[in-house]
This record gives sequence, C-alpha cells and structure tokens, in this order.
Amino acid sequence: MSRIVYVNGEYLPEEEAKVSVFDRGFLFADAVYEVTSVLEGKLIAFDGHAVRLQRSCDELGMTNPVSKDELMEIHQELVKRNGVEEGMVYLQLTRGNPGDRDFAYPPEDTKPTLVLFTQTANLLNNPKIEKGMKVISVEDQRWARRDIKTVQLLFPSMAKMMAKAAGVDDAWMVEDGHVTEGSSNNAYIVKDGKIITRNLGNEILHGITRAAVLEYARSAQMEVVERPFTIEEAKQADEAFITSASTFVMPVVEIDGVALGDGKPGKSAARLRELYLEESRKQAV
Amino acid sequence: MSRIVYVNGEYLPEEEAKVSVFDRGFLFADAVYEVTSVLEGKLIAFDGHAVRLQRSCDELGMTNPVSKDELMEIHQELVKRNGVEEGMVYLQLTRGNPGDRDFAYPPEDTKPTLVLFTQTANLLNNPKIEKGMKVISVEDQRWARRDIKTVQLLFPSMAKMMAKAAGVDDAWMVEDGHVTEGSSNNAYIVKDGKIITRNLGNEILHGITRAAVLEYARSAQMEVVERPFTIEEAKQADEAFITSASTFVMPVVEIDGVALGDGKPGKSAARLRELYLEESRKQAV
Repeated sequence: MSRIVYVNGEYLPEEEAKVSVFDRGFLFADAVYEVTSVLEGKLIAFDGHAVRLQRSCDELGMTNPVSKDELMEIHQELVKRNGVEEGMVYLQLTRGNPGDRDFAYPPEDTKPTLVLFTQTANLLNNPKIEKGMKVISVEDQRWARRDIKTVQLLFPSMAKMMAKAAGVDDAWMVEDGHVTEGSSNNAYIVKDGKIITRNLGNEILHGITRAAVLEYARSAQMEVVERPFTIEEAKQADEAFITSASTFVMPVVEIDGVALGDGKPGKSAARLRELYLEESRKQAV
Repeated sequence: MSRIVYVNGEYLPEEEAKVSVFDRGFLFADAVYEVTSVLEGKLIAFDGHAVRLQRSCDELGMTNPVSKDELMEIHQELVKRNGVEEGMVYLQLTRGNPGDRDFAYPPEDTKPTLVLFTQTANLLNNPKIEKGMKVISVEDQRWARRDIKTVQLLFPSMAKMMAKAAGVDDAWMVEDGHVTEGSSNNAYIVKDGKIITRNLGNEILHGITRAAVLEYARSAQMEVVERPFTIEEAKQADEAFITSASTFVMPVVEIDGVALGDGKPGKSAARLRELYLEESRKQAV
C-alpha cells in the first residue's frame, strides 16, 4: 500500500516521490522541517508549526513558497488522501536545486523544494505512557543554532542509537553540565512541585508543545521555572518528563540508571498530558 | 547539455538523477561525502579520498557498498562520460531509504544510497591565485565532529554568505579564540618561516590536501608546526593560505581587514602550491 506524498505541488505515489540529487536539502542539509500530529484525522497545533516554519525560514533567509492557508490545505489534503486517523504529517522545505553544487546560497529566484508526507502511528496509546521512559545523558554535540529546526539531525540520530545500545528509550543532551533537551523533545524535571525546564535560547528547539504545555500548566496554577538545570539536579528530581509534537507529554522515570522518586510516572506529567490533549484537541483543525 | 550522474549503479541524465524523499541523506543529513579534483582528465589524490570515505563510514557505522577499485572505476567512468578535463567528482553516500522516517538507524541490510556527479571548473587558473584571498573571521557554530565529512554543511554555507556580505572571499571559523579552519578548507599561517596549522582532532576536517602539503613541505625542509593558533596571531602573520581538494594551495592576503605582510600572496604558499601540483599530478589516476 503506497502513501501519497506531496512534492512541489504534486500528489505522487511514494515510489515516485523524489528530489534531485542536486537539491540543497540533500547536499548541504540546507532545509527546515516541521512535524504536526494528527488525532482523529485532525491537525494538532497546526498554527504553531506554521509560525515556527516561517521563523526558521526567516532565520536562514529561505523563501517559504506557500501561505499558512495553503499549507493547511496541503496538510489536510494529505491526511484525507492517506486516510490518516492518528499519526503525523512531516513537512520539509529546502533551498531548492540551483544546478551545480556551491556552498553559497543560490539566486533568490531559485525555486524552493517543498515535500510533505504522512506517517500513521499510535500516539495516544503509546505503551511508554504507562511505564515511563528511561533515558541516559550524552554530551550535546550539535551545532549552535538548535532554535532553527533544520534537518541537521545526525547527532540526534546518533544519540538515539546510544540510548538503544544502553537499553533505554532516549537520550538527554548535556552541555557544560546542563541539560539542553532530549534527542527530539524538550526536557523537564519536577522538584517540590515546581516544573523546571530550560529557558528558550539558541541552545534548544522552541517546542510548540512546550509553549502550549507551559501555558496550560500556568493556567492550572502549577509553578513553572524556565532555567537551565544540571544533569545531577535532574537525577535528584521528584519526577521528569518530555514534550514533543508526537509524544505530547511523556513521563521519564530513570536517568542514567537512577530512578526518579518512586520510579513510576509522575503526577505532574499525567496531569499535563491530560490538559494538553484536552485543549489541543479542542483546537484541532 | 545534460551531465551523466551516477545513482546506485545507474548512469543517468542529470534530470533523472533523483533520490527518494525518504532517503536519510535528505531527512537527517545522515550522509558523508568526498570531492576529488580532476586535472587533465585524471583524478587527484583519489586514494586519500577513498580512505577518508571509509573512515567517515566507520565512525558512523555506515555501510560502504563499493570497494576502492569499484569506486575508482565509477569516478573514471563519470569523468570519461562527461568529458571532464578539469573540475571535480562529487561523491555522496547515505544510510539509504528505510521507508518511514525514524531517528534510529534502519536495519543493517538497508541499501545505502551512492551518488556521484561531476562539475567542470577552472582549478589551475583560478583568478584568486594572483591576488590572494581576503577572509573574515566568524564564530565556529558547527557540530563537534568535524573530522567526519558529513553533509551537515548549513553553517559553512552561512559562513560563505557572511563573507560575501562583507565583500570578501571566505570565512575562517574561530572557536574559543582559536582558528579551526576555513569554511571548506584547512587554514595555515606562516610566521618567521614556520608553517603553522591546527593539529588534527575532532575540531577540523582531516584534509587530504593538508596531509599531502605538510608532507611535501617537510620533504622540502620547510618547518611545520601543528598547533592551534589564535585569530590575533593570524593577523600578525607574515603570510597565510588555505588548502582544499579543489583550491589546492591558495594564498590569503587579508584577515578581518588586516593586510598580512606586504598584502601580497606569500612565497611559502606559492612554493607549496607548486610542490603539491607537481607531486599530485605525477600520482594522478
């Protein structure tokens, strides 16, 4: 069964969904992306992803060829054509194919490459919700502009493989002793009722789910502190969790072999997951 | 006029040279590359590039699907089919297309993607040889494993654009006050007859041209010191230059607006360029 994939205005069977080997997304990782979750056939937090995509483009001087409305239409059309009830829509925008390979950006009228595809996944009943995730810490070896959502994802891939080799679920990246974020998610600890997560900056991705979860937490009178925390502090936390577009809020129960609290998923994570899913489903499009 | 491009065993017109949008080289920058120069229709330093490609694969646990002999045959066949007298052969190897997008590496039997193409260029009579290059310094924002030749090249592209905006030819990247390397080349200064260049480590690419040039310099009784140098030290140097596969040895005459020595290309660079071209053409295949 072949998916339908969007490539530069065309809806193609996935076997025909290709880009030139001269595309700058392939040759230079000169590309940005977004992943939007789908629940009950509807897009979760679409607006936030569209806004962040535009920000990534602005930071890199990259042309976004479609308006927010057009982008939403493409997302919805793909979800429909592929009959996705639960899963995600992946979007990648590149600086296009200027012909010859050259580090310098191509002329501004070079047509960008826009690709979108869907993946079906079991997001709501992810088995890790009940047991919680185990993570290890690894040195953060990524480039300096993690606030721009580029496809320079080799280190996060390597970190996932380090986690796998260690028999755990994911890796938290550490820089100068402080946790930056998870390999593809934002990281949080809870101590004495305070939710602590790294403040925004170039060091971490400005998570769409992060922004929503913090807003809902504050609305629910939960105390939120945005500051760097060390990996040692994390191991002493009462609980921990991650957020991302496709995991929503997911508990973390162990860091580097140290069980947090009673070693079971924490209450704050459960409460925030509930709040996030309730609110974001209301706004789904 | 269409080039012939090699994609996974096939020689295709460049318009048909495509990869799947699910290829990990496109989605995760999970890919390594090499650029081999061509002079008089022959490959320069092919062996060094083949060895480094294997090292990149080994560091990333990536499968290299072709032997060194097969790789040489593909290079030579492409040069022949495209009638390249002077220019380069670009090679990119990715972890392939496993279907769905997933950060974790795909099963080991996933077929890697191998792409090669040629570009014609005027390498020997590059006009910058006579005038020398002007560079600016920029903060090195790349990931930590620059010794692995991956396609995570967005920051080097950004650095080239910063140089362009500043009206100069290239950028030297600086970390903790010390020069790492040029945006796509190794960096050298010359002071009191000593050739100074950063020692090998994860911080810089292990240049094939660098290794050859240092060998020829030592054979010619020139003193070579491999150690980090600061950008301030560089501005006080008698001369400076870069090396890369496609520029060979190229003089640098100005750093951040400061002219080096008498502001003209230095003698060491000229001598080393001559030595490099002489020796490497002898060994061309």
